[in-house]
Amino acid sequence: MATVLRRLARFSQTGLSAHRKNGWSFALPHSVSNHRNSSTSSKIKVDLDSNTGIAVMRFQSPPVNSLSLDFLTEFAISMEKLELDKGCRGLILTSAQPKVFSAGLDIMEMYGKSPERCSEFWRAVQEMWIRLYGSSMVTMAAINGSSPAGGCLMAISCDYRIMADNPRYSIGLNETKLGIVAPFWFKDTMMNTVGNRETELALQLGHLYSSSEALKIGLVDRLVPEDKVLSTAMETMANWFTIPDHARQISKSMMRKPIIDKLLASREADIKNFVSFITKDSIQKSIGMYLEMLKKRKA
Amino acid sequence: MATVLRRLARFSQTGLSAHRKNGWSFALPHSVSNHRNSSTSSKIKVDLDSNTGIAVMRFQSPPVNSLSLDFLTEFAISMEKLELDKGCRGLILTSAQPKVFSAGLDIMEMYGKSPERCSEFWRAVQEMWIRLYGSSMVTMAAINGSSPAGGCLMAISCDYRIMADNPRYSIGLNETKLGIVAPFWFKDTMMNTVGNRETELALQLGHLYSSSEALKIGLVDRLVPEDKVLSTAMETMANWFTIPDHARQISKSMMRKPIIDKLLASREADIKNFVSFITKDSIQKSIGMYLEMLKKRKA
Amino acid sequence: MATVLRRLARFSQTGLSAHRKNGWSFALPHSVSNHRNSSTSSKIKVDLDSNTGIAVMRFQSPPVNSLSLDFLTEFAISMEKLELDKGCRGLILTSAQPKVFSAGLDIMEMYGKSPERCSEFWRAVQEMWIRLYGSSMVTMAAINGSSPAGGCLMAISCDYRIMADNPRYSIGLNETKLGIVAPFWFKDTMMNTVGNRETELALQLGHLYSSSEALKIGLVDRLVPEDKVLSTAMETMANWFTIPDHARQISKSMMRKPIIDKLLASREADIKNFVSFITKDSIQKSIGMYLEMLKKRKA
Repeated sequence: MATVLRRLARFSQTGLSAHRKNGWSFALPHSVSNHRNSSTSSKIKVDLDSNTGIAVMRFQSPPVNSLSLDFLTEFAISMEKLELDKGCRGLILTSAQPKVFSAGLDIMEMYGKSPERCSEFWRAVQEMWIRLYGSSMVTMAAINGSSPAGGCLMAISCDYRIMADNPRYSIGLNETKLGIVAPFWFKDTMMNTVGNRETELALQLGHLYSSSEALKIGLVDRLVPEDKVLSTAMETMANWFTIPDHARQISKSMMRKPIIDKLLASREADIKNFVSFITKDSIQKSIGMYLEMLKKRKA
Repeated sequence: MATVLRRLARFSQTGLSAHRKNGWSFALPHSVSNHRNSSTSSKIKVDLDSNTGIAVMRFQSPPVNSLSLDFLTEFAISMEKLELDKGCRGLILTSAQPKVFSAGLDIMEMYGKSPERCSEFWRAVQEMWIRLYGSSMVTMAAINGSSPAGGCLMAISCDYRIMADNPRYSIGLNETKLGIVAPFWFKDTMMNTVGNRETELALQLGHLYSSSEALKIGLVDRLVPEDKVLSTAMETMANWFTIPDHARQISKSMMRKPIIDKLLASREADIKNFVSFITKDSIQKSIGMYLEMLKKRKA
Repeated sequence: MATVLRRLARFSQTGLSAHRKNGWSFALPHSVSNHRNSSTSSKIKVDLDSNTGIAVMRFQSPPVNSLSLDFLTEFAISMEKLELDKGCRGLILTSAQPKVFSAGLDIMEMYGKSPERCSEFWRAVQEMWIRLYGSSMVTMAAINGSSPAGGCLMAISCDYRIMADNPRYSIGLNETKLGIVAPFWFKDTMMNTVGNRETELALQLGHLYSSSEALKIGLVDRLVPEDKVLSTAMETMANWFTIPDHARQISKSMMRKPIIDKLLASREADIKNFVSFITKDSIQKSIGMYLEMLKKRKA
């Protein structure tokens, strides 16, 4: 949290890019994104249309929108900014990369890193979920590609999910398939979406659901052709905007606050758990072998 | 509670109307209903058939069976009487008004009233739910008309719901649409009926479900032609009566007691919340404007 | 617990039957099963195939695999043994009796028995559930016959349920129909399987679901022809085995531990409840009449 706040402070000193006529769009200035990444482009593009009150966040971190510390920090900063902007009532998450919404947590953040760095990373993962699941905005995932693990978490933390009707795209919490375990707040979010029994199967089997399977169990709310995903989200948002914000926000909070509070109450323990697990020799070795395999596959 | 008990005491002093041959029916005597309302007729008609053990409660408070303090007090008194009557094993709620089961809480009880009166009203709303959701009788809603907000709460507090198969009738907790928020025990009852995810959508959007949508999500259990709603409830009740009462009651209590206890533990705070919200100038102004609009619509 | 442990101790002193080439199978030696039952055969046959890592437990306690104290003790011993066997990753429960998976708790254990014996019996019922619901193995019920009450509990305590597609076989917690009540942990297990609303109906009505109804509400996961039940379980198990055990086990525990802990925290109170209920004169009289009726039916 301290880290994110420090970054937020740094960010607000450097200022944002210029406002457009109706709304604004921004990319993080280099001073923020450069200190960790040589890429000069930001990982998330945000466009707010002040006519509609809808912000679109496009993930543009090639190749697969992995949730790196830089990505997550940008995400938290963008969320903070949008929450404070009275002209913004709704947020749509979508991907600018082909075939993938987000591939989930960046495995490079878990390999050969110091415990301090792992801890900072995990705090940023928590922060992403806390801000998104508890957002006062109407949040929608326009899922225009596959969405495993952390990508699935982002999607199910929104208020509504529209997915491209493409049998090659899948979504799910597939952690067990990789020998790791989704933390309890991933599980809680999944349970609140598809219920206890389906979550039991989903987590034990690490099942990746095809788009039509996902619709059937309620993991996503609607399937549309790929080129209609974003526009359908926009139209659906208009319907949600007919509800007075204040009443909707209290209703949402009533549903979601209990499980957010659960994480807030055990946040440090959850970080400790993650760090002690991920820094184990055996786990580091497994990840190393997995990365070797990936390299060979590419070659 | 104290108020309801005082009213119950007053009620039992004045006595009830005569018993019929097989069972009884009653209407509240004037001394009870008159002190608040000039209407000489009672708002709820209760008929108990001691041959079948089934009581039918007909809501007859024109035009839309609004849940006023008088209505709720009559309801609590009737429930108390039926619970104590060993000849009564089941209760069917239905409407004697055309096209509506109940329109929910009476908005006039929330406009221009003293905090004391608002507090008394809210306690009566709580009391209705506590008695109905925790009833030892088999309770069924014969939903022969629309059933928004508090009307929906009454329906989902029963053990079983049979609704008229009429696409013009709708049911749901639509509070957010009016800029207000369903309290946590409305939410808990809804969650226990349709699950977490559907409740999240239902409450955030204040969605009114058509009868067929309601069946699909499990908000009602069965659709039948309008003229069969009551008779189907009677037939279904006969099936429930094959189960020994005592075992069924303990099973029911095991399922429902936890969320009733939640309200009992925070009943006064819940009343305070309601009163402080509803007596706000801004809210009173909104209600006033809403009532003006209704008047104009009629004219 | 103490009793089960004593029995386990006795059991391990007497030793097990010989191992087969690839895996083993055992039947409890007489010294264990005889002291309560004159039958020389064991009530459960266990076969572990160490090639596949799958153990099959066949219930062979005629006529209907009632859960007697002896049966439950054998079950606990077998579970203990399999959990400790590193060659065993999965367990399939099925019946060697025609037309029935298990008829549930043995009513003879509840009739004319001392409070001490009733207490020992109930502890063994709890132990069965704690071991099965919390098993680290992949557990599957190959339901090749009817499965009421305690039989249903065993099935829903597994990770996956495959049932014979036979309309004459039924499954459900039908306790209320007999005038008794499923304890809270039966209820919790049911809720985790089919959700709150269906459990409310199921428990209040003591409903026995046909196989196709059971599939529809998610009480079982799959229907296959009767002669394919076991082989389908084997094939399904192979799919579950592709998931690393450790990650799957932690995920399972995350889902199930909370309700197991609830029973562990109130185990003695739960036993007291059962004993004081079952030893009541009125209940003993009811059971006696029920047994008389059964006798007459046979004659």
